[in-house]
Amino acid sequence: MSAQFYSKENLRFMLHEMFPIAELCKLDLFKDHTPESLDMIIDAAATLSEQQLRPILVEMDSKPPYIENGRVKVHPKMREIMQQFGRDGWISMSAPHEYGGLQVPFTIVQAVGFIMAAANYSPMVYGFLTTGAAHLIESFGTKELKDTYIPKMYAGEWQGTMALSEPGAGSSLSDIVTTATRTEHGHYLIKGQKVFISCGDSDAVDNIVHLMLARIEGAPAGTKGISLFVVPRLRPEADGSLTFNDVNTAGVFHKMGYHGAPIAHLMMGENNDCRGYLVGEEHKGLSYMFQMMNEARIGVGCNATSISSAAYYNALEYANVRTQGRKVTEKDPSKPQVALIEHADVRRLLLFQKAVTEGSLSLVLEACSRYDRWMASEGQEKENNHMLLELLTPMVKSYPAEMSILSTSAGLQIFGGYGYTKEFLAELFFRETRIHTIHEGATAIHGMDLLGRKVMMKNGMATMLLMQEVMTDIQNAQQYDDLKPYAIALGDKLMKLQEITMHLIGVAQAEGPEAYLSDATLYLELFGILTVGWQWLKQGAKVEELKRSGSRSYSPEFLQSKLHAVQYFFEYEVPKADGLIVRLKSTNRVTLSAVRGEIV
Amino acid sequence: MSAQFYSKENLRFMLHEMFPIAELCKLDLFKDHTPESLDMIIDAAATLSEQQLRPILVEMDSKPPYIENGRVKVHPKMREIMQQFGRDGWISMSAPHEYGGLQVPFTIVQAVGFIMAAANYSPMVYGFLTTGAAHLIESFGTKELKDTYIPKMYAGEWQGTMALSEPGAGSSLSDIVTTATRTEHGHYLIKGQKVFISCGDSDAVDNIVHLMLARIEGAPAGTKGISLFVVPRLRPEADGSLTFNDVNTAGVFHKMGYHGAPIAHLMMGENNDCRGYLVGEEHKGLSYMFQMMNEARIGVGCNATSISSAAYYNALEYANVRTQGRKVTEKDPSKPQVALIEHADVRRLLLFQKAVTEGSLSLVLEACSRYDRWMASEGQEKENNHMLLELLTPMVKSYPAEMSILSTSAGLQIFGGYGYTKEFLAELFFRETRIHTIHEGATAIHGMDLLGRKVMMKNGMATMLLMQEVMTDIQNAQQYDDLKPYAIALGDKLMKLQEITMHLIGVAQAEGPEAYLSDATLYLELFGILTVGWQWLKQGAKVEELKRSGSRSYSPEFLQSKLHAVQYFFEYEVPKADGLIVRLKSTNRVTLSAVRGEIV
Repeated sequence: MSAQFYSKENLRFMLHEMFPIAELCKLDLFKDHTPESLDMIIDAAATLSEQQLRPILVEMDSKPPYIENGRVKVHPKMREIMQQFGRDGWISMSAPHEYGGLQVPFTIVQAVGFIMAAANYSPMVYGFLTTGAAHLIESFGTKELKDTYIPKMYAGEWQGTMALSEPGAGSSLSDIVTTATRTEHGHYLIKGQKVFISCGDSDAVDNIVHLMLARIEGAPAGTKGISLFVVPRLRPEADGSLTFNDVNTAGVFHKMGYHGAPIAHLMMGENNDCRGYLVGEEHKGLSYMFQMMNEARIGVGCNATSISSAAYYNALEYANVRTQGRKVTEKDPSKPQVALIEHADVRRLLLFQKAVTEGSLSLVLEACSRYDRWMASEGQEKENNHMLLELLTPMVKSYPAEMSILSTSAGLQIFGGYGYTKEFLAELFFRETRIHTIHEGATAIHGMDLLGRKVMMKNGMATMLLMQEVMTDIQNAQQYDDLKPYAIALGDKLMKLQEITMHLIGVAQAEGPEAYLSDATLYLELFGILTVGWQWLKQGAKVEELKRSGSRSYSPEFLQSKLHAVQYFFEYEVPKADGLIVRLKSTNRVTLSAVRGEIV
Repeated sequence: MSAQFYSKENLRFMLHEMFPIAELCKLDLFKDHTPESLDMIIDAAATLSEQQLRPILVEMDSKPPYIENGRVKVHPKMREIMQQFGRDGWISMSAPHEYGGLQVPFTIVQAVGFIMAAANYSPMVYGFLTTGAAHLIESFGTKELKDTYIPKMYAGEWQGTMALSEPGAGSSLSDIVTTATRTEHGHYLIKGQKVFISCGDSDAVDNIVHLMLARIEGAPAGTKGISLFVVPRLRPEADGSLTFNDVNTAGVFHKMGYHGAPIAHLMMGENNDCRGYLVGEEHKGLSYMFQMMNEARIGVGCNATSISSAAYYNALEYANVRTQGRKVTEKDPSKPQVALIEHADVRRLLLFQKAVTEGSLSLVLEACSRYDRWMASEGQEKENNHMLLELLTPMVKSYPAEMSILSTSAGLQIFGGYGYTKEFLAELFFRETRIHTIHEGATAIHGMDLLGRKVMMKNGMATMLLMQEVMTDIQNAQQYDDLKPYAIALGDKLMKLQEITMHLIGVAQAEGPEAYLSDATLYLELFGILTVGWQWLKQGAKVEELKRSGSRSYSPEFLQSKLHAVQYFFEYEVPKADGLIVRLKSTNRVTLSAVRGEIV
């Protein structure tokens, strides 16, 4: 269980070369930090992850949460971990100084989350959800809400959640039917059900604070009539005592993996005594919630990357020690067997895992660095970084999630029959990561978001900005002979992407929005491959620069492995764009023309 | 649990139009059958599957086999099912009349297996493994072995297994170290360990009969020194009694899915009293075992197809009843939500599942029909069918298995959050099917088999035969306007496949066998897409023919759905060949050049 689950050297490369935290520390918002102080946070997260989180990974998997006397019981260690998350400032690290936080960059928050989730995905969810929920109260809540809830949440005593989904409203948030009735006492009475609420009930904390979407009576239909409430499980009274707030746990979902975190089904207001406290203005709840959702989407991309990383190092270790078969050039069966890693196909699988893991991480941190610059800058730079972040978010959420299914599967395959058993962790990662293409918006939702909204927003300004960024990096990479063909290939594919976008705009005009969006998921997939290709090209150029500078900060093996992964990505992954390009240019609309009864 | 798990109409289309069993019944070997009598067998398999197998699917998943007092305990229903498999002739159906079998075509055997595994994969494994093991004794065993074992096995009283893998020899069979020592009594003394033995121990039967590979002392190293033995758990004595044969169960593997069937770890000869009975000649064991392995490989492709089928109908049913969201053209949130299947992306996922399921089934049955013609014909026809079968086997094993991971994943995705829970079967199928790219040869092994052996065997004769077959079907399809572009596209891709084969032969000459085979898995993937494209084109042409003939044998919806799936396959799946073609033509060898320490 002491096995490696991420690369410290790669994370250092990311935070000091690719997206230098030294640059962030120059910004006023982060001026209290130095690269060294931020590195210490990373080191502390690594220690916590190795010593507290990884050791209970298997046990958490084998003992999922259960209901006892109407309450969800989770792994007994979780209370201690939440207390530690609170005590050591993990929950509040991104909060402004005024809330007792460290005001660390979002880049560092996600780097910490990356390490923790690579060690053990479930426990970090408790903490990070609490951060997101508290952050929402911070941004939009009244002083009273802030004073009442935030300190307890940052202390790890109260759990925060995001309570959106309902039995009839999953992907379709506009169909939320949980109601909020105004009262003369200032609060609202909440009535309804929520499903799939992560950490929606747990005995690891003293209280649960739901950031909940509900519809105030008389509100407009659809997303414009949704309001945001704080709905605690126990409501704090004026004297500081806690009263049960009529939030009942109807059940806990039995999941395929991700067993350490409970996903609850909640019933509010069965006795008409569930009080909700409005956050911000009525009917504007969804726009507030998007703050948490957008952060959570980057978080999901990051966590999927974590599991890919854990699966990669798990398989890499095995491939180096397990012997099986001989090189195809060795015909003598009396010669000793060789390590799995000596076989070309095993290396292909490992390079795939590495390329997915490190490419995804780079994309996630690209988004985080945009986030931090959006937060910390002003004027056009603020605006530009925000636009880039918005445009990149669908890929940041989806590419790591979709590819993690395949990369954990590749890891499992390397173990052969053992990969299908519980003797190694391969099957656990394969089960664990499968949630990520579903929660925080299923992949198809992000395809629609990208093609239906983001690509065209502000007359395509965000897309133009991104293309400029990528073209600059392509030009930079062309100075290195080994990267030049890949730089050219990426430029070529980007031209084709733009052609496809133009083609689809023509489809929208000629055939309408349904045809326009019918293959949005594939458009997202294509966009994802190319943005990760961009990240690999940037990494390649950075490595070439380091090599030429004579830097000794990284091992030669590390630098060489990066260049191999660049090759792998452009030789094996980028060509997948070709099939997508062919499809996206086709005028066939079989997914629209096949009528319901004819898919049989 | 009474939900649909396969399409009767499609299976009828397969067995009466695509690969007509009426033609098989004309062959001397199968002359005792009529299409009607074979249809009755199919119907009986469906009834058994619906009434006996499907109802215990979930229970089997939740109660995996366990060890008690050194023996494996399986689901209590399994004894009854094995008895029924024996009593009703399911285990012996393919056996020659002289062994009490029905001598039914392999096509029917696999069609039966397809239905059973779609209902519940695990139980069918017990029966089919027993058939395969008995068939091996039939083919190569002495009269005494036949008389002693076959009747009990066909009666479902004794379980048959194939015992190949060892702790140090999984993919690398040449490294088997289990020993067999000659004795003066005719039998051998067996000593060693076997792992991953499906149904290797179980209390559903009275005895277990292992068809086991071992190395006789003094045998040549490698695959040329492997012999085949019958090694029973209890050995029958002359008086009919059974004596413990020193085969101990060391453990049962805890797997991710496929929980109904035990996978055992066995220890033979701990007390030097494990007797093995030689099958055929010494040192020729692997060649005999290939009979069972080749049948099992087709079986694995078929079973993966079964699980894809079950997952497809599971998702299709949900997509038709679950409402969520509105058409993108509907902006009014007060309008009712629509069924999931109304969304283009859900249809894309469903069409993907359908295309994988029915395309895989067609490929499997193509192989079965070659098998039957090989068995039932003489001279050049026998030889040609055997060559085609041999060439197709890597794709038949691997395409359904690899694609089932993705198609069950697509099914899970359609359920959204519910897909990740145990409330529906989606996650079960996703776990269950993951074994298929591993057992009976991991995918990489089949890539090496295809490119390293099959494509070039007999100077490429098998490949030429296949190309002729496909070209004939391409020409036939060109007469239908809707199919013509797809027929042309397939022809074009086949040309490219041949170019790549030629290119790789050049690589072999210039760079040696390691470079030649380094992307064999991708070559297999490409070959798989094109052979399944061939099957879809054939299906399309058959449907067009039926429509023109005015046949009323199939519903218009069924026929239309086939044409949609043809469109889907050529519009969405065949383009994936393009990326593979680009990669396979590249001269970059990163998977060979990345040395061990540099994948970090």
